[in-house]
Amino acid sequence: MTPSTSIKNHSNKNLNICVILVGLPCRGKTFISNKIKTYLTWMMINSKIFNIGDYRRKQLDSQLDEFTSIDADFYNFENQEGLKIRLNSYENALKDMEKWFLNNEGVAILDGTSSTRSHRKWLLERLRLLHIEPLFIESFSDDKDLERLNINALIKSSPDKKDFDFYEMKIKNYLKFYESMNEFDDEKDYTFVKLMKKANGLEQAVINKVQSYLESKIIFYVMNLNYLNPSKVIWLSRHGESVYNVEKKIGGDSRLSERGLLYAKKLPQLLKEQGFDENNQMSAWTSTLVRTNETAQYLPFEKILPWRALNELDAGLCDGMTYEEIEEKYPEDFKERDDDKFEYRYKGGESYKDVVLRVEPVMMELERQSNVLIITHQAVLRCIYAYFMNIPQDQSPWVAIPLHTLIKLEVRPYGACKVTLIKANIPAVSTYKEKGTSNVGEDASIKNNSSRNLLADTM
Amino acid sequence: MTPSTSIKNHSNKNLNICVILVGLPCRGKTFISNKIKTYLTWMMINSKIFNIGDYRRKQLDSQLDEFTSIDADFYNFENQEGLKIRLNSYENALKDMEKWFLNNEGVAILDGTSSTRSHRKWLLERLRLLHIEPLFIESFSDDKDLERLNINALIKSSPDKKDFDFYEMKIKNYLKFYESMNEFDDEKDYTFVKLMKKANGLEQAVINKVQSYLESKIIFYVMNLNYLNPSKVIWLSRHGESVYNVEKKIGGDSRLSERGLLYAKKLPQLLKEQGFDENNQMSAWTSTLVRTNETAQYLPFEKILPWRALNELDAGLCDGMTYEEIEEKYPEDFKERDDDKFEYRYKGGESYKDVVLRVEPVMMELERQSNVLIITHQAVLRCIYAYFMNIPQDQSPWVAIPLHTLIKLEVRPYGACKVTLIKANIPAVSTYKEKGTSNVGEDASIKNNSSRNLLADTM
Repeated sequence: MTPSTSIKNHSNKNLNICVILVGLPCRGKTFISNKIKTYLTWMMINSKIFNIGDYRRKQLDSQLDEFTSIDADFYNFENQEGLKIRLNSYENALKDMEKWFLNNEGVAILDGTSSTRSHRKWLLERLRLLHIEPLFIESFSDDKDLERLNINALIKSSPDKKDFDFYEMKIKNYLKFYESMNEFDDEKDYTFVKLMKKANGLEQAVINKVQSYLESKIIFYVMNLNYLNPSKVIWLSRHGESVYNVEKKIGGDSRLSERGLLYAKKLPQLLKEQGFDENNQMSAWTSTLVRTNETAQYLPFEKILPWRALNELDAGLCDGMTYEEIEEKYPEDFKERDDDKFEYRYKGGESYKDVVLRVEPVMMELERQSNVLIITHQAVLRCIYAYFMNIPQDQSPWVAIPLHTLIKLEVRPYGACKVTLIKANIPAVSTYKEKGTSNVGEDASIKNNSSRNLLADTM
Repeated sequence: MTPSTSIKNHSNKNLNICVILVGLPCRGKTFISNKIKTYLTWMMINSKIFNIGDYRRKQLDSQLDEFTSIDADFYNFENQEGLKIRLNSYENALKDMEKWFLNNEGVAILDGTSSTRSHRKWLLERLRLLHIEPLFIESFSDDKDLERLNINALIKSSPDKKDFDFYEMKIKNYLKFYESMNEFDDEKDYTFVKLMKKANGLEQAVINKVQSYLESKIIFYVMNLNYLNPSKVIWLSRHGESVYNVEKKIGGDSRLSERGLLYAKKLPQLLKEQGFDENNQMSAWTSTLVRTNETAQYLPFEKILPWRALNELDAGLCDGMTYEEIEEKYPEDFKERDDDKFEYRYKGGESYKDVVLRVEPVMMELERQSNVLIITHQAVLRCIYAYFMNIPQDQSPWVAIPLHTLIKLEVRPYGACKVTLIKANIPAVSTYKEKGTSNVGEDASIKNNSSRNLLADTM
C-alpha cells in the first residue's frame, strides 16, 4: 500500500498530449520545449521532443544535389520548394510521433514555428484523428531587444551555423505570413497559452480553454520559467562534514565536525575565486537543519532563506543508524532499497520519489530566480542535480555528490549545463554507499571510480 | 526530522498577500472569495475575507435615521452620499485588515467591486504602505445569460433581500464607470488575473506580472474552478464493510465482507432514490484498492476511474494491525497520534497532512468536474469532507464517516453545503476510534454521540 502522487497517477484521462510550439524564429521555442521535457522527465512523465528543424536538416541532407546551401529565402512562404520541404518535415515528425504513441503514453512536444492558422488547423485535425490532445504554446514577442538577445544565443548553439543577418531575414520572411494566436475567431476554441515576453521577462500570459489537469500543470510550469535570465548560475553544496557523517550515521540533526567548520569558513573564498559577485543579488537557501545553517554562517548574505522542503530525505526508523546497522536490522529492506532506490520508502520515512515531489515547488522557485546558492543534503542535491542534468530518475539516487565540494552549474538556454566541481581540499569522509554493500568510502573527493561517480562523468 | 510540504513552508517571501476582487455586481466575486478561503484553509494557510458589502450594511444600520432603505440609485457613482458610504466601507475593511496582519501572516481577501482605476490605485498604495502584496482578481463577463443566472443565485442568498430589477439597475449604475483591467497602461505593472467568463464557463484568463509562488498557486486554483456549474452534487461513500473491518484491522487490501457486498448491491438503488440521474454524465472515481472497486462493481457507469491518490492513508508498519495491537506495540506513538492526529505520520506510512497534499490534485479535478461519485476510504473521505465543509484541519481527522452510508453533498455557490446522509440500513462494524482509547464502536450508523459525530452535527 504505497499511494503514489506523481502526476501520471492523478488521472487516466487526456494523458496523451501534443504540445505544439508556435512562434517566429528566435522566440525561445526550443528553450521552452527542452524545459518542458526536463520537467516532465523529472516528474516521471514520459515525453519526447520532435524538432522540425532536425527533420528539415535530415531531409535537406538527403537532397544535397538540389540544395547545396540554405539561405533565408528558403523561409519565404512564397518559395514553393521551401514550403514543400518544411511541410514534409512536419509530416515526417507526425509519422514518428504516431509510432511513438503506439508504445508510449505521455507528452509529445512539436518544436517548430506553426506560424499560420491554416497550418495549426491541419495539425489539430491530424492529432484529433490520433486521439491526441493538442496544447498550443505560443512564444510571442515584438521586442527587438529580446530578439537580438535570442539571435545571439542561437548563433552560438544552432546546428545551422548562420549569422545575424540570416536570422533577421528569416524572421522577416516569417513575419509576412505570421498569425499570432488569440486574434482569430476560428481559434477561440483551441487550448492554448500565449506567452507575451519582453526583454525584461514575461509580461503577460493568455490562457485559453484548458481541458485537463496535466495541461494546466505544464502551463503553470512554463509561466514560472525565467525568460529574463535563461542563462544563469546555480551554486550547489552539501553542508560541511557533520559529526554524524564522521560516525557514519545517516539522518539526524548534528552539528558540523571540525573539518566541516573549516569548509564553512572557506566557502566564501571558493565562491569569490569562481567569480561569484556579491552585488549580483544572488540568494542563498539552506534547509532548516543545523548542519546546513552552520555551513552558511560565514557567507556574505544579508538574508539566508531556510526551506523545510530542502531538508534531507527522512530515513524514518533508520534515522541515526549506520548502513551496517540497517543491513543487520532490516536486511530485506536494505536489499529492496538497492534494487529500486528511487521508489524505496524508508520505514517511517521517505523515498527519493517523495523527495522529488516535495522539492518540486523549490524547483519552481529556482526557475523563477536568477542566481542562487543552495546548501542542502546529499539526497536533495541528487534530485536537484538530476533536474538540471536530465539524469533519469532511476539513476539519480546513485549520483556521487562529495562533501566539501562546491558545484557550479552554468545553466544555458540551449544545450547541456556546464558543471564545474570546486574542491575545497579539506578532507572529509565519503558518504557514498556503493550498491550491494554497506561500505562507505574514505574520501569521495579522491576516490572517483567511474561506476559510482556519475557527477564526475557529466563534466 | 519531518520535512513539511505545505505551501507555507515553500518560501518565506511574499506570504502577506491581499487578494482584491474586481468586477461588476453579480459576477461571482463572493463565490471566488469563498473558494480561495476554503482552498487556503485546507492547505493550512491562514486567510480572512473582508466583505465590503458587510461593512456597508453595518454602516447603514448605524445610520438608520438617514437611510431607511437602499435603492439601486445608492450605487450611482454620481450619488455623493452613496459613494462616501461605500468608500468608508473600504476604509473600515482596510483598518480591520491592518489589525489582522499584526497578528497573522497569510492572505487577506477583499471582496468588493473595486471597479475603477483610481480606486485600485488608492488600494494599491495603501497596501504597499503595509508591506502587503496586492493581487487583483477580476471576474469579467459581458454575457447576459451568465448575469441572469448569477442574479437569480444572489436573490436566493444575499442578505440584501432585493429583486431582479434592483440588481439589474445596480449593475447599470456600475457599468457607467466600470473600468476593466488589462485595458489601461497605468495598470500594466499590476499583478492581476482577469477571468473572462461566459455562461458556458471560463473562456480565457489573462495573467499579468505574477510575483510569487503563492500568487501563482492561487491563480492556478481559481483557473481550475468550475464556473459553469458552481452548484453541483458530490456523492461520497466509503467502500462497503471489508473483511479487515470485521477483524478490526486497519489498512490492507482485503475484499468486502458479505454485508459489504450487500451494500455494493444496494448502492445503485440508493443513488436512484436520491435523484441521481444516469444521463447526467456523472463520473465515478474509486481508489485502486480491492474494497472500493468491489463496492463500485454494480454501478451503472461505463467507465470508473481508479485513482492511486484516493488510496487509504498508508499506516506503514501498523498496516494490518488492530488498534489494540498498535497501542500495545507502540504505546508512545499511539498517544502521540491522539494528541496531533493531523500531523502524526505512521512509521513507514503517512499523516493526514501527507494525505491532504497528495489528494490536492484530486480536489483540483473535482473542482473542474460537475457531478462526481467518489468511493474511497475513511481518512481520505475525512479530508475531502473537510474541504467542502470548511472544517479546520486539526479537527478533520476526528470526523465520523460511518460505513454503509451514502453522503450527498450539495455544493452551492453561496453559503454552506447541504449534507444528506443516506443510510443503507445494512449493519456494519464501526471503525471510529475515540480519542484516548483503542475502542471502536459497534455500529456508527446507530451510535451518534455528539462528541465524535461531527458529520451528523453539520446536517
